[in-house]
Amino acid sequence: MSVTAAKGFTAAGVAAGIKENGNPDLALVVNNGPRLAAAGVFTSNRVKAAPVLWSEQVLKGGQVSAVILNSGGANACTGPKGFQDTHATAEKVAEVLEGHNAGEVAVASTGLIGLLLPMDKLLPGVEKAAAALSEHGGEKAAIAIKTTDSVHKTAVAGGEGWTVGGMAKGAGMLAPGLATMLVVLTTDADLDSETLDKALRAATKVTFDRVDSDGCMSTNDTVLLLASGASGVTPEYDEFAEAVRKVCDDLGRQLIGDAEGASKDIKVEVINAATEDDAVEVGRSIARNNLLKCAIHGEDPNWGRVLSAIGTTKAAFEPDQLNVAINGVWVCKNGGVGEDRELVDMRYREVVVTADLAAGSESATIWTNDLTADYVHENSAYSS
Amino acid sequence: MSVTAAKGFTAAGVAAGIKENGNPDLALVVNNGPRLAAAGVFTSNRVKAAPVLWSEQVLKGGQVSAVILNSGGANACTGPKGFQDTHATAEKVAEVLEGHNAGEVAVASTGLIGLLLPMDKLLPGVEKAAAALSEHGGEKAAIAIKTTDSVHKTAVAGGEGWTVGGMAKGAGMLAPGLATMLVVLTTDADLDSETLDKALRAATKVTFDRVDSDGCMSTNDTVLLLASGASGVTPEYDEFAEAVRKVCDDLGRQLIGDAEGASKDIKVEVINAATEDDAVEVGRSIARNNLLKCAIHGEDPNWGRVLSAIGTTKAAFEPDQLNVAINGVWVCKNGGVGEDRELVDMRYREVVVTADLAAGSESATIWTNDLTADYVHENSAYSS
Repeated sequence: MSVTAAKGFTAAGVAAGIKENGNPDLALVVNNGPRLAAAGVFTSNRVKAAPVLWSEQVLKGGQVSAVILNSGGANACTGPKGFQDTHATAEKVAEVLEGHNAGEVAVASTGLIGLLLPMDKLLPGVEKAAAALSEHGGEKAAIAIKTTDSVHKTAVAGGEGWTVGGMAKGAGMLAPGLATMLVVLTTDADLDSETLDKALRAATKVTFDRVDSDGCMSTNDTVLLLASGASGVTPEYDEFAEAVRKVCDDLGRQLIGDAEGASKDIKVEVINAATEDDAVEVGRSIARNNLLKCAIHGEDPNWGRVLSAIGTTKAAFEPDQLNVAINGVWVCKNGGVGEDRELVDMRYREVVVTADLAAGSESATIWTNDLTADYVHENSAYSS
Repeated sequence: MSVTAAKGFTAAGVAAGIKENGNPDLALVVNNGPRLAAAGVFTSNRVKAAPVLWSEQVLKGGQVSAVILNSGGANACTGPKGFQDTHATAEKVAEVLEGHNAGEVAVASTGLIGLLLPMDKLLPGVEKAAAALSEHGGEKAAIAIKTTDSVHKTAVAGGEGWTVGGMAKGAGMLAPGLATMLVVLTTDADLDSETLDKALRAATKVTFDRVDSDGCMSTNDTVLLLASGASGVTPEYDEFAEAVRKVCDDLGRQLIGDAEGASKDIKVEVINAATEDDAVEVGRSIARNNLLKCAIHGEDPNWGRVLSAIGTTKAAFEPDQLNVAINGVWVCKNGGVGEDRELVDMRYREVVVTADLAAGSESATIWTNDLTADYVHENSAYSS
């Protein structure tokens, strides 16, 4: 599983002392080739953390030999010193691994904004991680990138003779243009960086980009896909792209299932939209409606709040043709009262809200969570 | 105070039995002239309640002789029957008041979406309200439009020989393009409907439109301005517009101060923006950031979340030139750590977040609230 499911990769997760509680906080993933092809997608936030600025440059070369990831500090809003620290971390990885070039070492960080990383702990940690590298190190790497995650997240898919595996961290601040998520995917398929880039962008567009836990966008989001070519197999593009999408979808679903303070996972399905963009716009508007998210927390199938949310969009629809189902019961028909709301069973964690725009044949799904007192508590005490 | 502060108006607030708890739920405001000039601003939600659809048509004529407002039901998403009920209510008002025309009677409703109003109670209530009309009825009218409001809201301003007064209800679901707010403003200034419209739009643009409690937009928002001309005074436009702005600003501030479950009123000031639109976009993005709203609830001056929110906008700025103050302490300077966050005193209800974009000389202020467990509780149990 995880980043060592595919051949050609080793990984490690260690406690470098960045986190004060002594938990694992540093992960290293190494591509042992023969290929070093890579692609990456980063936060669209204009306030980008130092490791994002660094890794964007690295990915322009289309080659990544290693990824170093730390939890316990985001290294965001840390100025020139923060960027120097990221650079020094990449240099240290290249030095310790021998034969690597810092310009091919991606760096990712997660944790609080506005704090410099403790480099006196991080750099010795790199040596420790390198010494622990193993073909079975994927789980440990996935554990070391956790912040407020309650569980580590891994997934795997593949085809005849080749594999795509991955790990993710993220438990809140999940939003389009990615979330506070760090994701590393690896594959032993023999593909070039252009193909990886195409498959990764296609996958994130319909998976991570449609995971919107709380509408907040991070400064650090990073999704990387590394190919070692170690299987010697070059799969058909469509088959490969579908495997990447599956792994991203699986990890995205795990992120929603572990969102801070959430008690419900909400699948917002928009159907019969005029365009896919309309479906996504409506889905996001519903997913970000705090009043609806509170209602679902209270197991209240409050379709009026769904209609209010749809009404704020520019999508094609007529108000008196809108239909809304909650867990399969069409509580709103033609913009008014539909089936008996008492028929809706909302006892389980997963809740499906279906919005029928009656305007075409396109659709999209956005995942979100309910809004809970626990979310408020976790996020009002986070940095204190 | 309220809608009877200006000469030429009578008002009443009665219990018609629409609310099951027997509280006042029906308000009537009558313009006794000599002028019947009026202007209105309505929700920009495309899913509009029946009374909004009706009153938009009424206002096209530029004359309003009376406004009937009910709490206890929004009459939204109620189909053709809901619109017929609104029409019947206006007809009833015209009939009871004698000499009035239903086409000049505005209707406003607030409460739950998706329920038909109990017309067997509402129509007799109109007679009761008409019988109670008084030059001192403004307070009672303001009380009758409350829903979850803890207090009724009124304000007054004016000049030499003329007055602008008003009432408002709203306690959540406050968002740009207005909120679930019903507002009636009255003036005895002698002005035509075009002048009223200009002054009202200018005022709402910088007041109610910049009150964003929870990012949710209602189906029922209505702001009306009625002029009786009873003072015989025609003020200068600028002086009049400023009085209208003052009353709207005062009422908007009261709405934020009474938002459901809130423990903090947050003034988001954006300064040194390249354009006013940039300032508003950045202000809204900060005001809608759930993570920041939780942090402020926890009295945590978490400037990283302010930067994250700014970074999602298209406004002109350079990340390394951003400055953020919380209650006057510049905790973020040049995109990084600034003054000691321990210096920030957040014990009081009002919190000021100042974002300096260092990109120009324009500014804007958006008001919002913190996100609390009480907000979740109130809104997860509202319709059950």
